[in-house]
Amino acid sequence: MKVKISRRSTFNAAHRLHNKQWSEEKNKFFFGKCNNPHYHGHNYTLIVSLLGDVCEDSGYVIDISYLKKIIEDKIIDYFDHKNLNLEIIEFQDLNPTLENILKVIYNKLRKEFSDEFALSIVLYETENNFAEINEMPG
Amino acid sequence: MKVKISRRSTFNAAHRLHNKQWSEEKNKFFFGKCNNPHYHGHNYTLIVSLLGDVCEDSGYVIDISYLKKIIEDKIIDYFDHKNLNLEIIEFQDLNPTLENILKVIYNKLRKEFSDEFALSIVLYETENNFAEINEMPG
Amino acid sequence: MKVKISRRSTFNAAHRLHNKQWSEEKNKFFFGKCNNPHYHGHNYTLIVSLLGDVCEDSGYVIDISYLKKIIEDKIIDYFDHKNLNLEIIEFQDLNPTLENILKVIYNKLRKEFSDEFALSIVLYETENNFAEINEMPG
Amino acid sequence: MKVKISRRSTFNAAHRLHNKQWSEEKNKFFFGKCNNPHYHGHNYTLIVSLLGDVCEDSGYVIDISYLKKIIEDKIIDYFDHKNLNLEIIEFQDLNPTLENILKVIYNKLRKEFSDEFALSIVLYETENNFAEINEMPG
Amino acid sequence: MKVKISRRSTFNAAHRLHNKQWSEEKNKFFFGKCNNPHYHGHNYTLIVSLLGDVCEDSGYVIDISYLKKIIEDKIIDYFDHKNLNLEIIEFQDLNPTLENILKVIYNKLRKEFSDEFALSIVLYETENNFAEINEMPG
Amino acid sequence: MKVKISRRSTFNAAHRLHNKQWSEEKNKFFFGKCNNPHYHGHNYTLIVSLLGDVCEDSGYVIDISYLKKIIEDKIIDYFDHKNLNLEIIEFQDLNPTLENILKVIYNKLRKEFSDEFALSIVLYETENNFAEINEMPG
Repeated sequence: MKVKISRRSTFNAAHRLHNKQWSEEKNKFFFGKCNNPHYHGHNYTLIVSLLGDVCEDSGYVIDISYLKKIIEDKIIDYFDHKNLNLEIIEFQDLNPTLENILKVIYNKLRKEFSDEFALSIVLYETENNFAEINEMPG
Repeated sequence: MKVKISRRSTFNAAHRLHNKQWSEEKNKFFFGKCNNPHYHGHNYTLIVSLLGDVCEDSGYVIDISYLKKIIEDKIIDYFDHKNLNLEIIEFQDLNPTLENILKVIYNKLRKEFSDEFALSIVLYETENNFAEINEMPG
Repeated sequence: MKVKISRRSTFNAAHRLHNKQWSEEKNKFFFGKCNNPHYHGHNYTLIVSLLGDVCEDSGYVIDISYLKKIIEDKIIDYFDHKNLNLEIIEFQDLNPTLENILKVIYNKLRKEFSDEFALSIVLYETENNFAEINEMPG
Repeated sequence: MKVKISRRSTFNAAHRLHNKQWSEEKNKFFFGKCNNPHYHGHNYTLIVSLLGDVCEDSGYVIDISYLKKIIEDKIIDYFDHKNLNLEIIEFQDLNPTLENILKVIYNKLRKEFSDEFALSIVLYETENNFAEINEMPG
Repeated sequence: MKVKISRRSTFNAAHRLHNKQWSEEKNKFFFGKCNNPHYHGHNYTLIVSLLGDVCEDSGYVIDISYLKKIIEDKIIDYFDHKNLNLEIIEFQDLNPTLENILKVIYNKLRKEFSDEFALSIVLYETENNFAEINEMPG
Repeated sequence: MKVKISRRSTFNAAHRLHNKQWSEEKNKFFFGKCNNPHYHGHNYTLIVSLLGDVCEDSGYVIDISYLKKIIEDKIIDYFDHKNLNLEIIEFQDLNPTLENILKVIYNKLRKEFSDEFALSIVLYETENNFAEINEMPG
C-alpha cells in the first residue's frame, strides 16, 4: 500500500507570455494582455508530491522536512521574486506559460528524487487556473 | 510528458432531490430535507481539467481563455441562477443529485473537446461534499 | 480588555429577489437573473461574534458550545434547506436580499444574548459577496 | 462511467513522533521538535472518497449522509480530542506519523465499504502537509 | 442599523519596491529582494466595502452589480496585468508598497461613492500579507 | 489616513482546558472532551495587525519583514510544537482557552510595538472558532 506525501509552497514572480519566434503582432493577438511587454506577475502556489512505500522504521515515505528543503533550495530560491523571462535561464528561449513553468519545475525536481518515488506536481497561477503533471506509479 | 490544465468556475442554482418514479413518502424518507418541495440551493464550484500534450508553439495544452469561454457558454450560462428541476431539460426525468449534475456537465463538455484530451471534472456542492469524473489517459 | 469570540456556520437555501410592491417588469429589470421566478440558491456562510469580558473562572467570553447551539437552534435549523421566500415568515413581505437576510438573523440572535455583549454578524452569499452588521462596543 | 464521491471532515488531536525501538537521542535527532515528550497537536482534515457506479434509482454512488455517519462513527469519534500516542490502541507500537495515521484510517474504513468501491483517503496535518492513499479502480 | 456590504475581486500585476529619492544601495539594503530591478509580481485580492443604510424599497445598501462594475471599471481594468512602476501614473513618483497601492485604490474609489457611505478597503498581496483602510462610520 | 497592515502565521500546539481551582468533576462537566487529561491539539492561525501612519520615505506602516520577525521570535518559536499547559509559564495557573491564549499573545506583542500603533490580534483555533482583540485607534 503506497502513500503519496505532499508539500505546499509559494513563490512570487513576474513574467510575460511571449514566443520569440513569432512577430509582435502574433504574440499580441494570441496572448492578449498576458503579452504586456512591461510584464505582470503572480503568486504561484506549488504542491509537490511523492508516492512511495512507508518506511517501517521512520514511519515516513520521505522526511517532509527534507522534501521542504529540496523544494526551497531548488525551486523557491530559484524563482521567488524573479522575472521569469529575464532572469531564469530555462526561459531564455521558452515561453513561461503555466505549462512550461510546470515542466521546468518537474525537470529540476525529478533529478532530486529516486525513481522509486512517483512524482506529482501541481502549480497554481491564480486561484482559478492551475496545471499538474502526474507520474504513473511504476 | 502530458500536462493537465484546470479551470475553476462557480454557479448558483436551486434544486430538490426527487425521483418521479417513487412515492412522495419514499422520496421524503430517502432524501430527507433535500426533498423539500419548495427547493433549496447551492453555490456550485466546478473544476474542468484537460490532460494533453503541451503545444511547442504556444506553450499551451489548450488556451485557458478558450477553455474558460467554453465553460461559461456551455455550463455557467446554462445552469447559473436556475432551478435545476424546473428549468434544465436534462433533469426533467433525472434526479439532480450531485452525481447526476456532474454527469450532465461531463456529457455537455465531452462534445466540446477532441478525444486527444482526457477530461476530468470536479463539482463541489458544498465545501464538504464533492464529486468527480476522471477519464483515464488514453 | 474585551475579547471578541466568533463561530462560523453554514446553511443552504433557495431564494429569489422580488419586491411584491413592484411590477413584474420593474422586478425583472432591477434584479435581473436574481429575480428568476423559479428561484436559485446559495450556500450561506455565517459568522457570529460576541465581544465581551473574559470570565476569570472559565476563561471564556461565552462557552462556544453554547454559542454554537444557539446558532444551530435559532438560525441553521430555521433556514437550512429552505426556500426563503416561501417558507420563512419574515420574508413574506420582505425581499430576501443579502442585507435583509442579515438583518433578520441579527434580530433573531440579538434576543438570545445579553446587552453586555456587542454582537457582530457576517453573512457570505458567495465567496465574493458578503455583508455584515457590527454593534459598537457599549 | 464511474463517479468518485467525497466527504470532508475534521478532527483535533495531540501526538508526538516517537519510535519506541530507537534511543531517546536518535528520536530527538531524527524527529526534532515533533518528538517533544509533552506532545503537540493538529487540526486534521480528512477527505474520504468512494469511486463507484451511480445507482439509477437513487442517483447516488452512495448516500453521502451514510458516508458521513460511517466517518463520524469510525474515525471522528475515535480520534477527536484524543492523544494519539496514549489513547489510540493502533499507535501503541506504531509511530503516529501522518503516513501511519492515514494507514490506520484507511484500514478502519476499508472494512466498512464493499470492494465494488475504490476507496481514496486524503489527510491534511497542516495546510502545507498532507498525505493520501488512492486505490486503483478495479 | 447600518449594514456593510462587501465585494471581493482580484487582479495580477508586476512591481518592484523602489524609492527614487534613495541611492541604489539604500534601496537594495532596505527593500531586499522586493527591490529586484527586473520586477516580480503578485495576485492581488481586493475587498471593497460600503457601510450604509438598507434602502427599504430595494433591500440593498447598494446594488452589488453596480459596486462590482465600479470596481472593475476603475480598479481592475486599470491595474490588471500591468507593471505598477512603469504603467500606472500614480506610481511615477510613489513607491508601490502594499500600503501605497491601497491608498491609491482608496482615493480612486472614494470619488465614486457618496459620503453617506463609509468606505473600507482590504488588499491582500499574498495569503499572509494584507493591508486595510477603514473609514469610521460618520 | 491611517493604514492597518497585517501578517498571518501559524503554529501547532497541544493543550487541555482545565481550571486548577475546580474539582475534576466540575472541569470534566464544564469543559467536556476539551478537558481530556491526555491533551488534544490544534493548528493555530494568528493574524497580527498594526494600524498606523504610512511613512512617506519607505511607504510602509512598518516593515512587514520586521513584523514577521517579531512574531516568529516572540510568538511562533515560543508556542510552536509545545504543550501549552506543561511548557508555557503563562499557563501555569491560567486555563489555556482560546481567549486566554489570545490575551497572552497580546501582552507579549504589546511590549514590542510603540503606542503610536493600534494593535489587533486574531487567533483561529479551528476554521470555525476564532477570537480577536482590537485596540481602538488612539
